[in-house]
Amino acid sequence: MASDPDQIPAFSSDDTLLPAIVQSADSGKVLMLAYMNREAYEETLRTGATVFYSRSRNSLWRKGETSGHVQHVRQLLVDCDGDTILVKVDQVGPGACHVGYPTCFYREVTPDGLRVVEEMAYDAKKTYGGE
Amino acid sequence: MASDPDQIPAFSSDDTLLPAIVQSADSGKVLMLAYMNREAYEETLRTGATVFYSRSRNSLWRKGETSGHVQHVRQLLVDCDGDTILVKVDQVGPGACHVGYPTCFYREVTPDGLRVVEEMAYDAKKTYGGE
Repeated sequence: MASDPDQIPAFSSDDTLLPAIVQSADSGKVLMLAYMNREAYEETLRTGATVFYSRSRNSLWRKGETSGHVQHVRQLLVDCDGDTILVKVDQVGPGACHVGYPTCFYREVTPDGLRVVEEMAYDAKKTYGGE
Repeated sequence: MASDPDQIPAFSSDDTLLPAIVQSADSGKVLMLAYMNREAYEETLRTGATVFYSRSRNSLWRKGETSGHVQHVRQLLVDCDGDTILVKVDQVGPGACHVGYPTCFYREVTPDGLRVVEEMAYDAKKTYGGE
């Protein structure tokens, strides 16, 4: 696919990864951050459900494919520089985080170390089969 | 500085940049995303005001140094993988975005192109001297 330097978001090449912040449309809670390449971004727009690029698996990652915890896109925004995406979603299921919390940001940094500030929402072992 | 592989957030080296999402503690609005290296992160914790690493200037970026639009840290969280930071802040001044909007995410992606969904909050030219 040809690269359009004026395209926003600014996928300067097919390999470019841009951070995508996922926020609950209803609660305003920031659920997670993942990365999209152009293909993931276009599939997200086309299907209305979030698709990312997994840097560890080097492949598209359709959020919720294993867990059922799909994210339906309510609104998609880009930042001033066109290099960050914000997706407001309806999160299906108990949580966005594969550890079992509603959000991946379940730990606060305090002077005494990390403190868990969220309630466990589901049993990740059952959902992901021992992951 | 020695690298601690178990440290969270996971600055695997002094050059590692991690994305930091900045969210208004009061409104829940996502204001911006920028990057922190270890030095920026530690100064943020120490001073209680956000400090980033500017990838374009290759130097620390003390948010608000020019504009006065400082961000006071209310809570700092890390994600499950320890490689993304979420900072909940009190934003000083009319906006976080250097373009003049309250948030950098002022444009929605629609089938008809980009649509501005925020109100201009201040005159960026006056604040940044013609930037």
